[in-house]
Amino acid sequence: MEREQVTRETRRWELWRTRLKQIKSSKIFEILIITVIVVSAIAVGAHSYSLSPETIKALVIADYAISVIFCLEIAIRILAEDKVPDFFRSGWNIFDFTIVAVSIIPIAGTQVVWVARLVRIFRVLRLIVYVPQLRIIIDTLLKAIPRIGYVVLLMFILFYMYGTIGNMFFGEINPVLWGNVSISMLTLFRVLSLEDWTDVMYETMEVYPLSWIYYLSFIFLVAFVFLNIMVAIVIDVWLEERRGLEEAVHGDDGIPLRNSSPAPRVETLEDRMERLEQEVALLSTGTKGAGQ
Amino acid sequence: MEREQVTRETRRWELWRTRLKQIKSSKIFEILIITVIVVSAIAVGAHSYSLSPETIKALVIADYAISVIFCLEIAIRILAEDKVPDFFRSGWNIFDFTIVAVSIIPIAGTQVVWVARLVRIFRVLRLIVYVPQLRIIIDTLLKAIPRIGYVVLLMFILFYMYGTIGNMFFGEINPVLWGNVSISMLTLFRVLSLEDWTDVMYETMEVYPLSWIYYLSFIFLVAFVFLNIMVAIVIDVWLEERRGLEEAVHGDDGIPLRNSSPAPRVETLEDRMERLEQEVALLSTGTKGAGQ
Amino acid sequence: MEREQVTRETRRWELWRTRLKQIKSSKIFEILIITVIVVSAIAVGAHSYSLSPETIKALVIADYAISVIFCLEIAIRILAEDKVPDFFRSGWNIFDFTIVAVSIIPIAGTQVVWVARLVRIFRVLRLIVYVPQLRIIIDTLLKAIPRIGYVVLLMFILFYMYGTIGNMFFGEINPVLWGNVSISMLTLFRVLSLEDWTDVMYETMEVYPLSWIYYLSFIFLVAFVFLNIMVAIVIDVWLEERRGLEEAVHGDDGIPLRNSSPAPRVETLEDRMERLEQEVALLSTGTKGAGQ
Amino acid sequence: MEREQVTRETRRWELWRTRLKQIKSSKIFEILIITVIVVSAIAVGAHSYSLSPETIKALVIADYAISVIFCLEIAIRILAEDKVPDFFRSGWNIFDFTIVAVSIIPIAGTQVVWVARLVRIFRVLRLIVYVPQLRIIIDTLLKAIPRIGYVVLLMFILFYMYGTIGNMFFGEINPVLWGNVSISMLTLFRVLSLEDWTDVMYETMEVYPLSWIYYLSFIFLVAFVFLNIMVAIVIDVWLEERRGLEEAVHGDDGIPLRNSSPAPRVETLEDRMERLEQEVALLSTGTKGAGQ
Repeated sequence: MEREQVTRETRRWELWRTRLKQIKSSKIFEILIITVIVVSAIAVGAHSYSLSPETIKALVIADYAISVIFCLEIAIRILAEDKVPDFFRSGWNIFDFTIVAVSIIPIAGTQVVWVARLVRIFRVLRLIVYVPQLRIIIDTLLKAIPRIGYVVLLMFILFYMYGTIGNMFFGEINPVLWGNVSISMLTLFRVLSLEDWTDVMYETMEVYPLSWIYYLSFIFLVAFVFLNIMVAIVIDVWLEERRGLEEAVHGDDGIPLRNSSPAPRVETLEDRMERLEQEVALLSTGTKGAGQ
Repeated sequence: MEREQVTRETRRWELWRTRLKQIKSSKIFEILIITVIVVSAIAVGAHSYSLSPETIKALVIADYAISVIFCLEIAIRILAEDKVPDFFRSGWNIFDFTIVAVSIIPIAGTQVVWVARLVRIFRVLRLIVYVPQLRIIIDTLLKAIPRIGYVVLLMFILFYMYGTIGNMFFGEINPVLWGNVSISMLTLFRVLSLEDWTDVMYETMEVYPLSWIYYLSFIFLVAFVFLNIMVAIVIDVWLEERRGLEEAVHGDDGIPLRNSSPAPRVETLEDRMERLEQEVALLSTGTKGAGQ
Repeated sequence: MEREQVTRETRRWELWRTRLKQIKSSKIFEILIITVIVVSAIAVGAHSYSLSPETIKALVIADYAISVIFCLEIAIRILAEDKVPDFFRSGWNIFDFTIVAVSIIPIAGTQVVWVARLVRIFRVLRLIVYVPQLRIIIDTLLKAIPRIGYVVLLMFILFYMYGTIGNMFFGEINPVLWGNVSISMLTLFRVLSLEDWTDVMYETMEVYPLSWIYYLSFIFLVAFVFLNIMVAIVIDVWLEERRGLEEAVHGDDGIPLRNSSPAPRVETLEDRMERLEQEVALLSTGTKGAGQ
Repeated sequence: MEREQVTRETRRWELWRTRLKQIKSSKIFEILIITVIVVSAIAVGAHSYSLSPETIKALVIADYAISVIFCLEIAIRILAEDKVPDFFRSGWNIFDFTIVAVSIIPIAGTQVVWVARLVRIFRVLRLIVYVPQLRIIIDTLLKAIPRIGYVVLLMFILFYMYGTIGNMFFGEINPVLWGNVSISMLTLFRVLSLEDWTDVMYETMEVYPLSWIYYLSFIFLVAFVFLNIMVAIVIDVWLEERRGLEEAVHGDDGIPLRNSSPAPRVETLEDRMERLEQEVALLSTGTKGAGQ
């Protein structure tokens, strides 16, 4: 008797899950959530304008509503999975869950208004999870990180070296710009961005007339050479991955989309070559037979 | 009797249409219109210099003449079509027609001088319709829009997030730069263009010494990473489409030119492979016959 | 008797010409001329420093010597040709000859000192004729001109349109920046270079609060989109031509070096395919014979 | 008896060398040295902050310790080689050895504090020797130098020409910016970096209203065209070499890693083609035999 009840309940569950899955993968659900995300973003930004008390009240209510909708949405997506842990296998789902979870917390202690607002801004990032094309761009960038990482490391070494040298020589000329290594590195970043770098240079050239070598070598090395390598890496990774963008289909559970092979035409040439090779091989055995 | 008259008239029409077609596709017509477009552009720009009353009178007359010529030209091109609606099938023709139509309207109410001038400036864009190489560049750019669109969307999300955060923290330090979200985003665009961004940063660093993280992360993310992706996309689309530029021939009715296949050499290799495959296939059946 | 003398003279000429050819193509001659070009460049630049009267005297003498050497050098190169007009068939030779010829003229009227100096600066460009790698870079750039030309034309159209609009609306706010169309275009070039563009914008935003649309659309269109296309074109042309740089050998008469085929590996694949095709064709006829 | 002793000693040596080799190639040794390099870098940078006397004392001791560790490390790596000169065959080893050697020298004469510090900063560069991915980036850049060199030479010629012209015309307007050729070239570098270039231009336009041609042509030629070529070269070299980055394995003795073939897929196609050719060749002789 009990067993029957259990199976009945599991059946009911399965029915529910099927319904949740239908909801989750429906276009309406998707559009609704995207709309709510956009509304949520506007609501956070609206606080920066001078608003009437009624609007502020409306915004607070809207905020509660948005939080509730997001919780329901995540709940639906979790329950729609066959097993709950499956949901947390996708990096994007964990990202999504964390944003929603963190954005709810500050509702309790409302005295820290700016923490609550700050945390809610990040809900805009949920758009990336819902628009597959944005997800692909981010995925591509994530793939470029290891390669870019080493270039950034090399740039950091150069920054550190130039920063220490700059601090040693120019530290007493202008402590605001060259007071210690970290300030020197910030000044060098400014020089790298070519923002008023001549003012910085003319100042030190009065004491060390040859200090233009310091600036020019730094700009040439970092701005021209290393930034170009970064351009090259991003272009390289991008061209490799771009086909994925074209064939992008909206994935079911926020699982990152697989990119197609990067060079399908040459591949088919290879396949044909293979078939040709086999046929010629067959042919050659055949001919040998004929020749004998 | 009436029937005869009708056929005689249609014949006369056809004769006319053939003549119009000859006019339309003649090199002289084309060069004439390009000249008139250039003259029209110069006439609009000339108003910005202090001119003698006679020159101004001449410009007004020239303006009327140009409008008449443009109307005649569009009329010729429409009537030269076998059916009038055919003309409006090409996007470029609609674009062209709209510019001419809009630029004529303000002649009636001449009191709104600046509207008339503003509207006439856009007649320079007609050059794009008449010079096929320019049309190809624009077509290529239009093709890049969907891809660029998502990157711009992602950049906008980042702008919005940083704008809200900037407004929250720096809004009271300098309301001119961070007063509300839209002003903050304009300030961020300024930071992105590296224009006097250090002044903006030094101001906020006096209150929040760690605010350099905000600026550096923004510049790094948007200026270095996303702009590079945009470079990559434009280069990618351009290299794909460029062959069309070389083989560009002046199309008849402003119909966008079709681009040749992007990789013709590999294609021919493929074709040859195909023929080779067929021959080997034949050969193998032949040999089998011989072997039997 | 006379005939004999003529042939003797032509022989003597031929002997001379052979010697001149040997001189011209010798490594020492080349290095000597490159040295003289560099010395000539330094001599022109030296005038900008405060010099002792003796050094100035030495520079004047050096200048005469350089002019004489250049004349001799061009004479040797012309006489070394089998026929004098052959020399002028190469664009680089004409370029070279013109620079030397023009730089000699002002020696006569020495009162116009700055014209003489200006004209002599251009002798540095002779280095390009003598260093083949530089010649290849210039040749590559010249090949990119037609493609870049249309992008520049499109950018000019945009500049002109924005310039006229800018003059119309902002002309009375700041006549120094927007006084007429040409000044407006210069201001727009400044905006394009992102140099203090916010100052220009903030000034007009006081009168037209929405004028940021004008600036942002211009920067986005021209700085981001069209400049990227130019990057794409230069990269495209460069990658096509680069192999020529590696295989660069010093040509005889300044004739532009021919670039190798852009894709030799695929080409050889093609050649092999051709041979394979022929063999399979032969084979198939052979087998048919065997099958019969 | 003596002979025996010798062989015993060489055996002992060999045993030692094997141990040293094991130490050298062990992961722990590598991590230890990388840590010491990082500590050494931090120690040098720490001097720029105001420190307590104890910390300074600790830093001096740390510095001695680091120098000793580096000497030991280089000694181990030299003795681990089968023959000492083998160590100096690798460019990276010579680079490494020089840095360590130079950084030890100033310990003797400690009165020249800043020389000692300057020399020690360069020890950060040892990271490049120990992190193979950084070594690959540097190797790639070194390969790009000959190609970039000629573009830089061409840019220098343009700088020199524009510098001389600028000095001739603007030298008396603003001697601070255009006083002599070298200062003019520095000013031109500033114009190239688009840093406050309009201030420089507006100043000279008051005397020579057409001097905008000078600036715009320079910016267009150098900033837009030549910088793009440099981007193209770096991208080109990078894309060629990048595979090496992916397959990077930590080499034994700091020997630069060999990069894999740039186009392995086409290569294998070629190999297959070769095999196919041979087989068809065999087949054709076989068939001829069969046909006879």
